[in-house]
Amino acid sequence: MSAQHVLATYEIETSLPLEHAAEALAGEQSTGTFIRVQRESDDLRARFAAQVVSLDELPLSGQTPLPGFRGDAHAVRRARLVIRFPLDNFGPSLPNLLAAVAGNLFELREMAGIKLIDLDLPRAFAERYPGPAFGVPGTRRLMSRDSGAMIGTIIKPSIGLAPSELAEVVDELVGAGIDFIKDDELQANGPHAPLEERIKAVMPVIERHADRTGKKAMYAFNITDDISRLERNHDLVLENGGTCIMVCANLVGLPGLAFVREKSALPIHAHRAMLGALMRSPQLGFGYTAWQKLARLAGADHLHTNGPRNKFYESDPEVFNSIADVRRPLLDFESTVPVLSSGQWAGLAHETYAAVDTTDLLVMAGGGIHGHPDGAVAGVESMRTAWDAAVSGEDFASALSRSVPLRRAVEALGGIRA
Amino acid sequence: MSAQHVLATYEIETSLPLEHAAEALAGEQSTGTFIRVQRESDDLRARFAAQVVSLDELPLSGQTPLPGFRGDAHAVRRARLVIRFPLDNFGPSLPNLLAAVAGNLFELREMAGIKLIDLDLPRAFAERYPGPAFGVPGTRRLMSRDSGAMIGTIIKPSIGLAPSELAEVVDELVGAGIDFIKDDELQANGPHAPLEERIKAVMPVIERHADRTGKKAMYAFNITDDISRLERNHDLVLENGGTCIMVCANLVGLPGLAFVREKSALPIHAHRAMLGALMRSPQLGFGYTAWQKLARLAGADHLHTNGPRNKFYESDPEVFNSIADVRRPLLDFESTVPVLSSGQWAGLAHETYAAVDTTDLLVMAGGGIHGHPDGAVAGVESMRTAWDAAVSGEDFASALSRSVPLRRAVEALGGIRA
Repeated sequence: MSAQHVLATYEIETSLPLEHAAEALAGEQSTGTFIRVQRESDDLRARFAAQVVSLDELPLSGQTPLPGFRGDAHAVRRARLVIRFPLDNFGPSLPNLLAAVAGNLFELREMAGIKLIDLDLPRAFAERYPGPAFGVPGTRRLMSRDSGAMIGTIIKPSIGLAPSELAEVVDELVGAGIDFIKDDELQANGPHAPLEERIKAVMPVIERHADRTGKKAMYAFNITDDISRLERNHDLVLENGGTCIMVCANLVGLPGLAFVREKSALPIHAHRAMLGALMRSPQLGFGYTAWQKLARLAGADHLHTNGPRNKFYESDPEVFNSIADVRRPLLDFESTVPVLSSGQWAGLAHETYAAVDTTDLLVMAGGGIHGHPDGAVAGVESMRTAWDAAVSGEDFASALSRSVPLRRAVEALGGIRA
Repeated sequence: MSAQHVLATYEIETSLPLEHAAEALAGEQSTGTFIRVQRESDDLRARFAAQVVSLDELPLSGQTPLPGFRGDAHAVRRARLVIRFPLDNFGPSLPNLLAAVAGNLFELREMAGIKLIDLDLPRAFAERYPGPAFGVPGTRRLMSRDSGAMIGTIIKPSIGLAPSELAEVVDELVGAGIDFIKDDELQANGPHAPLEERIKAVMPVIERHADRTGKKAMYAFNITDDISRLERNHDLVLENGGTCIMVCANLVGLPGLAFVREKSALPIHAHRAMLGALMRSPQLGFGYTAWQKLARLAGADHLHTNGPRNKFYESDPEVFNSIADVRRPLLDFESTVPVLSSGQWAGLAHETYAAVDTTDLLVMAGGGIHGHPDGAVAGVESMRTAWDAAVSGEDFASALSRSVPLRRAVEALGGIRA
């Protein structure tokens, strides 16, 4: 592609002739209005108009057309559409890019469905945005986990623990040899357990274990907050020896995430809360492929992909595609660590490893560790045993026969998986 | 409602028993995980758990269930659900509020549809966020338009004009007596026409007319950009005598908008680009009622509602409901000006005024002014004549018989409307 253009791929549904709908979209998102106006010269259009690059018909989705679409529901057709936008129209700016590729177009009557599937960004974006600062190598280094899956957990209960109780939970988890712990996305800086109190309760526990073992568990403190508080929140983590911050990317906005990246000296654990609103409709909003590129552009070191058998709506193949998306190179950026979470436990290690063929993953088990019948130590051990077995080629049954924590996990958390 | 809770109203679809689905949502968004864990005491749940306040069955929507929902599509039921969230869980913080009321819940398998319809916020939010600084009175004062609809336009072509050409367009529009001009949302700070050059081309033209007439037209410069550039962009407008900034609220994120509000000495014209991705699905995302409250909380002085007969997907009743939403008091905030745009022209004044019964509106005509066959002067005059007639009770036919600009607008832009 040209260095001076952005390519945006959409799946559209329309009852208009496909070419007509595609041109309407390209016009609306560049030089057009509903009536041709003075000074809209042919030269201007040649330089600034977005162009339809390709249009390939797809099978119908079977979805009810979006409200307000123009035309006959029985005449709806579906297509994959690629549009080329001149970079000159907006420059390498994430929010201004969004105005062109993901702005008013979702409201167009011409569209009975419109979803932004993918984006191809020119290198100019890498000159403005540095991308992830730590990625896989920086994360492994900070948590002293050179190889194997990175095993993590989420503080549970999600909210309501006093800082002193939180310290007890962390003590138990870090004592169990966990690599990574994160706040729940619901736990941020509320009056019950303010961020500063949590940091000051947690970090001495982590440091005490690190002094003993030489390994410093990584704790992702959820610093999500008003934009003008983000830098101070980050600094609190840094000054108290913390090694990771968590930011809910959609809640502060992707430009908010990029702002954190500018200020941050720590890896950014990017949570995807609210992504479902943008992504779950098969015919509206963003596909994960497009969204994860924007989040990595904004500097996400860790990015939530969900995991197999999760409690949310995505199928396992969708989850595995998301993990592959995050691992695919983007511009010349450092890697981003895919974060598998929701309903994860030891019994999913073999299936996951078979599908993704890497251990450059952060595998988060909440209930799968806290809910282990013998406690968090056994929960972590069950995860590690299963992952090590998967990587070394030992089948699940064999690992099960030699590991009590794994057997107990299976009894409590799932049916036996061969 | 209690001062210590947020009420969130959803429309949900589910094939589970309605009560079961409602409890799953309340649990996921507060203390729950998929297995009950240590320290999740009854006391903790009593204090921090979200509560189902009401659940009222609704007629089915007829929409295809969202992907990944659990259960039988034929068993799907629909309900209006109100959940009460303890404020202590997140505090009066816009992004952290979103984690609770609009976070992971959109991805829950229990839901075949889930849309956040409304929010009832306690006064604590008004202590953190000041809301709009100018609203209707401040906007009227700055543009010297004491009464009557505020008439505005959008620069067209949207993009591609050199700053010198932009100055010519502005000269014509301001000479025509327009109250308000805005950049297109596609025109921000790209390399072709950087913000600073646009400001320096436009403001002398506006000042020259103001010196002559005593009325200073308001120009909303689109300062949308990376977060760390917003303050500088605002300052450029302010230092050059500008009286308004435009921010694409969803593109910088609502917390980005609140950040601008903290820094700004000018009215904020909040554009809604990308809202369609969050709002157009009848069964996912945000309803306008909820979204506009968040945008006003973040400080929007002007907020886009669309207008009747617009080129986008919303019906006229939906648009009129949105205008009513924006005009309804929120906490003790200053008013926000509803912004009617897209396909607006003089022929819609009577219908609009009959529906909304106010002139505290910014009515934006792009093609309806630029596309007037006798130019922008006639375009503005046609808008003013039609609105003045509507407000004074003169019917459209009578206004038409006495106004050449109105007659010419009808000939070019629409069928005759009696």
